[in-house]
Amino acid sequence: MNSTPSALDRLYSVIPAGGIGSRLWPLSRADAPKFLHDLSGSGQSLLRDTWDRLAPLSGEQRIMVVTGRAHRAAVEEQLPKLEDENVVLESEPRDSTAAIVLAAAILEQREPGVIIGSFAADHVIANPERFRAAVVQAVAVADAGYIATIGITPTDAAVGFGYIRTDEELEIEGAPQALRVGNFVEKPDLATARRYLSSGKYLWNAGMFISRADRLLEQLGASEPELLAGIMELAEAWDTPRRGMVVDRVWPTLKKIAIDYSIAEPAAAAGTLAVIPGDFDWDDVGDFASIAKLHSAGRGSELAILGKNARVLADSSSGIVVSQSKRVISLIGVHDIVVVDTPDALLVTTSEHAQRVKSVVDALRAGGSGDVL
Amino acid sequence: MNSTPSALDRLYSVIPAGGIGSRLWPLSRADAPKFLHDLSGSGQSLLRDTWDRLAPLSGEQRIMVVTGRAHRAAVEEQLPKLEDENVVLESEPRDSTAAIVLAAAILEQREPGVIIGSFAADHVIANPERFRAAVVQAVAVADAGYIATIGITPTDAAVGFGYIRTDEELEIEGAPQALRVGNFVEKPDLATARRYLSSGKYLWNAGMFISRADRLLEQLGASEPELLAGIMELAEAWDTPRRGMVVDRVWPTLKKIAIDYSIAEPAAAAGTLAVIPGDFDWDDVGDFASIAKLHSAGRGSELAILGKNARVLADSSSGIVVSQSKRVISLIGVHDIVVVDTPDALLVTTSEHAQRVKSVVDALRAGGSGDVL
Repeated sequence: MNSTPSALDRLYSVIPAGGIGSRLWPLSRADAPKFLHDLSGSGQSLLRDTWDRLAPLSGEQRIMVVTGRAHRAAVEEQLPKLEDENVVLESEPRDSTAAIVLAAAILEQREPGVIIGSFAADHVIANPERFRAAVVQAVAVADAGYIATIGITPTDAAVGFGYIRTDEELEIEGAPQALRVGNFVEKPDLATARRYLSSGKYLWNAGMFISRADRLLEQLGASEPELLAGIMELAEAWDTPRRGMVVDRVWPTLKKIAIDYSIAEPAAAAGTLAVIPGDFDWDDVGDFASIAKLHSAGRGSELAILGKNARVLADSSSGIVVSQSKRVISLIGVHDIVVVDTPDALLVTTSEHAQRVKSVVDALRAGGSGDVL
Repeated sequence: MNSTPSALDRLYSVIPAGGIGSRLWPLSRADAPKFLHDLSGSGQSLLRDTWDRLAPLSGEQRIMVVTGRAHRAAVEEQLPKLEDENVVLESEPRDSTAAIVLAAAILEQREPGVIIGSFAADHVIANPERFRAAVVQAVAVADAGYIATIGITPTDAAVGFGYIRTDEELEIEGAPQALRVGNFVEKPDLATARRYLSSGKYLWNAGMFISRADRLLEQLGASEPELLAGIMELAEAWDTPRRGMVVDRVWPTLKKIAIDYSIAEPAAAAGTLAVIPGDFDWDDVGDFASIAKLHSAGRGSELAILGKNARVLADSSSGIVVSQSKRVISLIGVHDIVVVDTPDALLVTTSEHAQRVKSVVDALRAGGSGDVL
């Protein structure tokens, strides 16, 4: 009998639930961030979809959520089985490294040798079984000492995602598809994206990371030692009466940096980052164009309608309507349109310009209309 | 000394204020018809604009308004100087002949020899002085026994208006521009409209009629004797205690027919219809495209914004926004767009499709959404 738990038994899921999703304004707001909305058409929030996808892997007792203090009640309402000790509250957003590595540090302290898998709270995955099969391989890779990610096999030359260039096969037991990561590349232009697609060597970066917690801490110590020191101070105080005091003092001082830059790229440069290609349908639903695409399954002549109480009358129109009011919405002869109707704000744009919503949010903030953000 | 009042002193203005303006839904409603809105940007309703345009001609004591019972309070609020005896209330709409000829019959009874001028409550005229100069000529023509209209000199090959074909000059004293009308033509196609424009012989039909009241009655008696009989029965009872009883019995039986068909076309056929060409800017603001045009003065790259409390943030957008809420309205990259935002209904279309709004109203009514009409 082997008393060491299997790698999968050591998996702890971490869900950073932080981003507002500014490109989805006025649906997503400071007080109603993207992960609290049903954008997949599942009938429940993206956060709950994420929970349901992870529970069969790590068990409901082993899912930690990192979120803002303001969202605590909403998160707990969405996830009634979330345990108190698995809630990490941020007093203010400090980007993904602080959120994920603090979770890793707390868990490593509670359970040395833990493997953490971090998955965004606000992405859509159509094939959860295939997703979990990829995670199982990634856990084996993590157990072998790599930091692992899951990269999505591209289905088109998307310019809205970052890409991962793959290198040779790693030949790790239990992870037949594992490849070494060459490097990460930022969102490309269309010509570059087409080249990536046809090369067969690139995957979409879906922001999923699976690693032994101690390896994450070690990598961060190499690239951002000050940030690691702050996180360790927080983790050591976490399960003590000093938590509140230390959070108030240390958290606001942590460097804001995305985990892609603090850990993934340095690990790739060091040859210790691995990737499992994921052959499941994935989308980060980053803007209304991608929601429209998701709901009309690529048929551009259709009109997708989101909203339980939507009253939409459309004549020769296509695109997407998001209704959060009981108002009658009438469209005549508008194509690839995006209409988002909420009680205090209305957005009208087109799929083509959906990425520019964020700049409008910035303009509203600058112009004193923060009340609708 | 001549004791007969001059023709202009015998003028009584009549304003039929009836049409809802379905092509302007959801701004115009059963309980907020087009004439109660500020569509000209004057800061007051079209009805009040009309009153202000007519008061210098006939005097405020000589303006009669024919409107629905439901609009009485709103009309009186707009026109505080409107005299009680100058309000004719319809229990239900019976089209323009009943409205205008009843007014004429009541006024002829009160003041034999009266000349009435009937002008829509919901049109826009940019040059009131030139309008009044045309009316003064039309009054002279009416005094000579003709039924007169004012036709607008076309500025483009519009397909949204009916046209008037002019014949020879009439050589009437005080009306140097008066022409005999050949015939009326319905809204033409573009090729026909271009031909009309280049011929120089056609004017737009603006629905303005100026005539001795007795001549109107006589013409209606020739073309629609039953309708005239009903109207005369109403007029005879009007200033008596029997008014209510007779209205309840007779008004709902009156034939619904536009005055163009019951009087203007038969008079044209008889050679007794005259027209004064009006060289003022006129628009019937029949749909949102024409409102957009009115407000951006033809500059297609601009965005017109109507609504006192409008909060509009537009990025690379053109067209028109009508805001009747305090909501923030954000437009990104939409061109020739029409957005009409009201508390219970939203319309999104384009200038090109603005004429189709009426069909949406019909569909809403058929579909059980009459609550927003």
